[in-house]
Amino acid sequence: MTEDPPVQHMVLAVSTVIFSLRPHPDTGELTLWLPLVRRIREPFKNRWALPGGPLQDSQDLGEAARTAMRRTTGLQPRHLEQLYAFGDVDRSPDAPERVVSIVYWALVRQDEDAHAVDAENVAWHPVDEVPGPLAFDHDLIVRYAVDRLRAKVTYSPIAHAFLPAEFALAELRRVYEAVLNRALDPSNFRRQILSQGTVEDTGRRMTGTAHRPPRLYRSAPQSSRYSLTIEESP
Amino acid sequence: MTEDPPVQHMVLAVSTVIFSLRPHPDTGELTLWLPLVRRIREPFKNRWALPGGPLQDSQDLGEAARTAMRRTTGLQPRHLEQLYAFGDVDRSPDAPERVVSIVYWALVRQDEDAHAVDAENVAWHPVDEVPGPLAFDHDLIVRYAVDRLRAKVTYSPIAHAFLPAEFALAELRRVYEAVLNRALDPSNFRRQILSQGTVEDTGRRMTGTAHRPPRLYRSAPQSSRYSLTIEESP
Repeated sequence: MTEDPPVQHMVLAVSTVIFSLRPHPDTGELTLWLPLVRRIREPFKNRWALPGGPLQDSQDLGEAARTAMRRTTGLQPRHLEQLYAFGDVDRSPDAPERVVSIVYWALVRQDEDAHAVDAENVAWHPVDEVPGPLAFDHDLIVRYAVDRLRAKVTYSPIAHAFLPAEFALAELRRVYEAVLNRALDPSNFRRQILSQGTVEDTGRRMTGTAHRPPRLYRSAPQSSRYSLTIEESP
Repeated sequence: MTEDPPVQHMVLAVSTVIFSLRPHPDTGELTLWLPLVRRIREPFKNRWALPGGPLQDSQDLGEAARTAMRRTTGLQPRHLEQLYAFGDVDRSPDAPERVVSIVYWALVRQDEDAHAVDAENVAWHPVDEVPGPLAFDHDLIVRYAVDRLRAKVTYSPIAHAFLPAEFALAELRRVYEAVLNRALDPSNFRRQILSQGTVEDTGRRMTGTAHRPPRLYRSAPQSSRYSLTIEESP
């Protein structure tokens, strides 16, 4: 930290993994999808890549992520967070220069997804059916993001980000099923979610539906059973 | 992502927040500390800064973090992970050029800390008594890291990283007290930790200590009560 700054030969990029839940074309089941951009230039011409690109001098990191999302999909998801920085020297040996990528991920609510407008060369794919090999090391980044999301739904309320403020437990279960890509037992799911303390009953029920409309829940405040309530010494 | 890469005018740096638990010089209580480096050049000459520096062309990100830690403190902590990338355009208006910093944090076990050898211009400080204002926006980064650690100990077993593989509950409580900077009620702490399922009894007891030596615990495998055990549909 005391040397003069070196001249760096690398490009800093911001990339985005945008997750949304859409029906699978074969089964009709809600599935986890993401958009990719087909590259029209070298390197990796004609391969699919995550939306993003080199960071502009005048852009904040999060702003670069939001711009890439808006430009490719028309989306401005509320749930956007930094995921990880990928910067190994040999992460993409076929690229002409070293790229360090700071990756953001977004979770898109269904009412937000209704406003998606794909730009040219953009297409959405179920996450387990991406048309690889992707450009750069984006296969690895997609795998990392999917694995992280699948892990995170089991120990945090992140699945709520796909839903509106109030939701039925069956809707929440369908989010979990889509993310995890497998069917869950409804009564076990209900019991586990309720014992976890991450949702609370709003006292209201869905309207305009069945004979016995389902209860509506919302995210519980942080004081859930996830947390250790540290009690001070008396 | 279809334009030619711009010429970027920014420096990519890797910085480290190295947390260790040491006695407070006034109270003797175990406290959370971190090392800082006094800058001997402009910008921010004579101010304290986090260990780190510009990323070299030939360095991986994690390698840069490990090198900075070893060079400043002699430490090579096992628990090292990426924390966050700080890259707002105006994050450090007094610096001569834009810096994007990828920050790693390390948690040092006491047996690891025994090997600390501070380089010249390096000094450790209790995290709530750092000699600010620090160089760049490092006050903000320190605050972010401390807040994140204090939050994370309440919903994850990260506190175990400060301890050897087997530990008494009183040792774990002292880690929580040091991180949170307040005294905790021993019996409440014991009850909460045990109900959380993040530790398991080894069946062994500490040796060479008291008349009734305390039980030794270890980190429980991931199947703790933190996790939602997603049961498949039958």
